[in-house]
Amino acid sequence: MAFFAETRTIDWVDGAVRIIDQRLLPHAFVLAEIRDYEDLAEAIRTLAVRGAPALGVAGALGVALAAKQFCNRAEPSFWASLADAVATLRATRPTAVNLFAGIERAWAAAEAARAGGPEAAAAAALAVGQKMIAEEIAASQELARRGAELLPDAGNVLTHCNTGSLATVYYGTALGAIRAAVEQGKQLHVWVDETRPRLQGARLTAWECQQLGIPYTLITDSMAAWLMRRGQIDAVIVGADRIAANGDTANKIGTYAAAVLARAHRIPFYVAAPTSSIDFATATGEEIPIEERDPDEVATMEGVRIAPDGAPVYNPAFDVTPAELIDALITERGIARPPSVATIAALGQRDPAPPPPEKLP
Amino acid sequence: MAFFAETRTIDWVDGAVRIIDQRLLPHAFVLAEIRDYEDLAEAIRTLAVRGAPALGVAGALGVALAAKQFCNRAEPSFWASLADAVATLRATRPTAVNLFAGIERAWAAAEAARAGGPEAAAAAALAVGQKMIAEEIAASQELARRGAELLPDAGNVLTHCNTGSLATVYYGTALGAIRAAVEQGKQLHVWVDETRPRLQGARLTAWECQQLGIPYTLITDSMAAWLMRRGQIDAVIVGADRIAANGDTANKIGTYAAAVLARAHRIPFYVAAPTSSIDFATATGEEIPIEERDPDEVATMEGVRIAPDGAPVYNPAFDVTPAELIDALITERGIARPPSVATIAALGQRDPAPPPPEKLP
Repeated sequence: MAFFAETRTIDWVDGAVRIIDQRLLPHAFVLAEIRDYEDLAEAIRTLAVRGAPALGVAGALGVALAAKQFCNRAEPSFWASLADAVATLRATRPTAVNLFAGIERAWAAAEAARAGGPEAAAAAALAVGQKMIAEEIAASQELARRGAELLPDAGNVLTHCNTGSLATVYYGTALGAIRAAVEQGKQLHVWVDETRPRLQGARLTAWECQQLGIPYTLITDSMAAWLMRRGQIDAVIVGADRIAANGDTANKIGTYAAAVLARAHRIPFYVAAPTSSIDFATATGEEIPIEERDPDEVATMEGVRIAPDGAPVYNPAFDVTPAELIDALITERGIARPPSVATIAALGQRDPAPPPPEKLP
Repeated sequence: MAFFAETRTIDWVDGAVRIIDQRLLPHAFVLAEIRDYEDLAEAIRTLAVRGAPALGVAGALGVALAAKQFCNRAEPSFWASLADAVATLRATRPTAVNLFAGIERAWAAAEAARAGGPEAAAAAALAVGQKMIAEEIAASQELARRGAELLPDAGNVLTHCNTGSLATVYYGTALGAIRAAVEQGKQLHVWVDETRPRLQGARLTAWECQQLGIPYTLITDSMAAWLMRRGQIDAVIVGADRIAANGDTANKIGTYAAAVLARAHRIPFYVAAPTSSIDFATATGEEIPIEERDPDEVATMEGVRIAPDGAPVYNPAFDVTPAELIDALITERGIARPPSVATIAALGQRDPAPPPPEKLP
């Protein structure tokens, strides 16, 4: 679908935030226009927009949207309302660091423009959101290019959750690396973990692969180990929701299992993420807050209860993979191989990410 | 539910096979009377009755049911029809060895009674089925008692799929060991893997735990590794669909992952199964046929498609855990620790299973 391949997952269009509503995929491809920051907060909570890089942009555009909504108010009211909006946006999801970074950047830009009044503050927040869109697109494409080099010329790659265009603004991180490798002519086949409980693999990654013509097969999360045992997985590549300064990586629940299993079968395990997902303020994975979500995500399917009424459920949305299980962290600034305090700090000291390509999607 | 706790999962009642229809759990507890062997074959294919020990009885009672149906036919027709029925029953599911053993035992008994005519053959087949019911109940209770001794006095146990009363005739294997431990006063909490794709954990094990008052929490299969990492799993115990002579064990897909993860975290991994699940004719797990089931089990949920139309799916129902990852094989005749050709052969050489307890459920 050429249309999907050219569509940004989140964007600012005609004075509104426009997202691909991921709750409706793979059945319907719907672009939703969001004109109220509270609706955007709800879209984040319900995973209509998700994926760490996309959430970074959502955070910034959320501040810009709120600032636009409150723009006609008197100054004290404008700033009080904007602070409330920032608090609402911050409270949506706790794990992906990009969300907070996006909110902070836009909020700081608005504050820096305080002298110009609400209109100037709103414009400054929006400028940050638009800059982040360009940055994330450039970072995705550059890290995907670097990641593609690590993937085999031919073989089978396992991925977990969704890390394609739908998790970023455009192109993707781990799935972006697979896409770049396939575009380079590598003969890859992707095993797509369905990714319980929310099924981002079955609903989103399978759909993206299908749209892009990437050969794939859908499996339940519990099947990957058996494929590894039989030599049918040559590499594992996943994304990240937050990477600590030492390389410990929070990502979708099930990632840690895949990493332990990959190590046990001597299969390389890669994390692909923009440097915007690195949280230098968090020393190790121990300190990363793990979101626990509604038990009904596990206990029901398509609105139908699958577990007994009253069944106790544990539903952490993420787990933390220790750096020692990660063979390489692939970013737009280079590859930390293996990830460690030193190799990750070195990424930060390099030149900033390359400028966006001339022709943006 | 005292009723469930006293109900056999499969039985011969009033000239028919009576099963708890597991397709309707946990929402409805329905006993189904089956009077045609083809309906029983369909019940086996659709998992209305499942679990290796229960399938052994289903195989024998299926032959008995067919023999009863054909009893009024002339001899050549009776034997030809019975042979057809045996072929139909054999073709239902390929992995659980008990099914074939049950069919063979009942068929052999019928043949041995050939001189007495169809009525005698039918009676002989039924006698085998009823003997197997008593044997499986006794074996479950004895192996559960032995397994309970291996479980900690207090702590958290992970189990996969369903291995309770619903997988046997009564009481259970791995879940039976947990039940016995709790009845002995051990302070256990069970992490119940939901067990994709068919969700036997969410639908059946959670329900059995709830009925029996066993403390439990439901998780997705992908969460167990994270619980292990955080020290929240003290032992893993699962059942078996077929155990090779060397101890390699075919069981529900996802079992192998749990075994590798348990070993990586130094957590004991136990298999609990009656000796009727040991296939001495199969030297190693390499030779065990693995059933591949309908892709729609993965691609749909509650009749709603979750993957894109046309998504390629891989759906093996079982995997094989090599003996070296199994700390102990718990049977009604003793514990093979670790399982090996020698320790498993030693089980076979011991006295037969103890006689059934006087008061059968």
